[in-house]
Amino acid sequence: MSDKPNNTQALLNLRDEIDGIDKQIHTLLNQRATCAQKVAEAKLQDDPNAIFYRPEREAQVLRKIQERNQGPLADEDVARLFRQIMSACLSLEKSQKVAFLGPEGTFCQSAAIKHFGDWMQSMPMTTIDEVFREVEAGACEYGVVPVENSTEGVINYTLDSFLNSNLKISGEVELRIHHNLMTAKTNDPKNITRIYSHQQSLAQCRKWLDAKYPNAERVAVNSNAEAAKRVMSEWNSAAIAGEMAAEQYDLLILNDKIEDKPDNSTRFLVIGRSEVQTSGKDKTSLIISMKNQPGALFNILKPFKDLKVDLTRVETRPSSSSTWAYVFFIDFLGHLEDENIQKLMQQIKQTAADVKVLGSYPVAVI
Amino acid sequence: MSDKPNNTQALLNLRDEIDGIDKQIHTLLNQRATCAQKVAEAKLQDDPNAIFYRPEREAQVLRKIQERNQGPLADEDVARLFRQIMSACLSLEKSQKVAFLGPEGTFCQSAAIKHFGDWMQSMPMTTIDEVFREVEAGACEYGVVPVENSTEGVINYTLDSFLNSNLKISGEVELRIHHNLMTAKTNDPKNITRIYSHQQSLAQCRKWLDAKYPNAERVAVNSNAEAAKRVMSEWNSAAIAGEMAAEQYDLLILNDKIEDKPDNSTRFLVIGRSEVQTSGKDKTSLIISMKNQPGALFNILKPFKDLKVDLTRVETRPSSSSTWAYVFFIDFLGHLEDENIQKLMQQIKQTAADVKVLGSYPVAVI
Repeated sequence: MSDKPNNTQALLNLRDEIDGIDKQIHTLLNQRATCAQKVAEAKLQDDPNAIFYRPEREAQVLRKIQERNQGPLADEDVARLFRQIMSACLSLEKSQKVAFLGPEGTFCQSAAIKHFGDWMQSMPMTTIDEVFREVEAGACEYGVVPVENSTEGVINYTLDSFLNSNLKISGEVELRIHHNLMTAKTNDPKNITRIYSHQQSLAQCRKWLDAKYPNAERVAVNSNAEAAKRVMSEWNSAAIAGEMAAEQYDLLILNDKIEDKPDNSTRFLVIGRSEVQTSGKDKTSLIISMKNQPGALFNILKPFKDLKVDLTRVETRPSSSSTWAYVFFIDFLGHLEDENIQKLMQQIKQTAADVKVLGSYPVAVI
Repeated sequence: MSDKPNNTQALLNLRDEIDGIDKQIHTLLNQRATCAQKVAEAKLQDDPNAIFYRPEREAQVLRKIQERNQGPLADEDVARLFRQIMSACLSLEKSQKVAFLGPEGTFCQSAAIKHFGDWMQSMPMTTIDEVFREVEAGACEYGVVPVENSTEGVINYTLDSFLNSNLKISGEVELRIHHNLMTAKTNDPKNITRIYSHQQSLAQCRKWLDAKYPNAERVAVNSNAEAAKRVMSEWNSAAIAGEMAAEQYDLLILNDKIEDKPDNSTRFLVIGRSEVQTSGKDKTSLIISMKNQPGALFNILKPFKDLKVDLTRVETRPSSSSTWAYVFFIDFLGHLEDENIQKLMQQIKQTAADVKVLGSYPVAVI
């Protein structure tokens, strides 16, 4: 109504164009769903217990889309839309049940939704143990558990759960965590003279702070939650923290996503009962047990260097059984089907007291 | 790997077909995003404070899509996918902030996501009051509050909040609520001889129960939550309740979506600061105050009958001010821009002591 005449026609034309595009997208979505149904039928002919959800195939589709993406939609946005499309198509065959570490509304549920789309049925569990048990018992097809948090580090409990489980890792999910500038609702944003946060978060938002609050004092505290708590009752101060802290301490978010680089993330693992074929860009996770003898770790890591396998993570945990002094959780790039990785595995087996393969799975698609 | 040769080729062909479809969808999504950017530019030329999100336009797009939908994707599924697509396109212009009645993980957040898509930024509030305040203060563009629950009835608190607010209703959201059969994790599903639930829920699942548990005794209790609580510690019994009850009482969901008809829903209102133009299929909400005199309600309702306006709801609430004895919350089909509704409003104003228009907004798209 407020549009001036010259623009009104332009807007109407654009709307017509959008309507035409929507019509085509709509037709294609239903075509895609029909194809997915045919895939399911073909699979069922071969095997009445056929698995419809193929993590490696989804990862391939998403990577292909991101590679050719020209925008204006961001790579992350098109991946998110296509995950939803695949989720909707898959649900025509089977509604997937996914257990996650609850309660509802946690990052873990966000990770499950990011990975499996809106059409899965997510089942909140109270403990990481329970997520493992539900998937082991077959009550859920998959589970999602946190494994690494950019502020808290590795979730040891998840790693330890793998020691006593036969479940496989079938995927990883990375969730970006955003920083927000927040203050008490009674504060005037213009008067902020002091900004609290964890040192790491302050560093991650340095450029933004230099530009917007060049004169505010920056004070490092133990955690972002503590920062949020402080500004509840302190005049002229603000905190950098996550959205949930604003909720918990009833603060007003003045600016969101203020991090200089969007690389602040939390990592989750998808656990299931079956192995995943190669997607072309995979990660493998192992648990290696060894005797506590000098040079043990070096001996284990040497084959990685020799075979030029890219180690992405090594975690050391005390062994739960008394047989071995400690165990290593090792992640590296590559799939067990790869020739190079098969060589690596042979060499590791010669050195280690015991090797447990947690699985090869597609590297997280952002 | 387990596919037999004859089917393997068929599967590969189908995958190629899906890849081709995905490529087309991808191109169209970016074309759509480009059009959305142009719309925003045109709007900004006219008005630097232009509103990008048009509820009436979204409703029109979704209805058009559902009308022509041939499947296999369900109408609800295509609407959900298109909401996400629109949300992603809109986010290129402006990330919308939406306050909702928290905490995270409640149905109210689900309603906000259903309406605004994944790309909005949802802000959990502790009370309905706070949702109103955040939107009034301009800290959020929109708010989502519950207004009607199929088990608890109308949420009076939301209605009362409108009495002291100048916010407008800019939309309604309906969330389908599903029934699930659940039991204690130690129970064997084969041995269930008794099923607890609220009478209404038992009735809503009657056919399913007749087919699957013809011999189980059905026991009506006060609420679904109570049913869930009972079966926690009772052998050979199950409860019909929502997913959240299973979580709360640590029960195992044996079957989900067991309701005979999918018409069990909860209704939410979207509140904002601006009026919404007609979408062609709208609802209008009013608050009418009147003196406590015989025939008052009849006099107010008569023009609806005379003008054949479809009343969808009348709620009576005691007035918060002492001036009027009571107020009516009235919902009816039609938009204030409609000629017929303008006549209606004139007649109502002649009879009522005071009329407050809460807004005309698109009827919920399922």
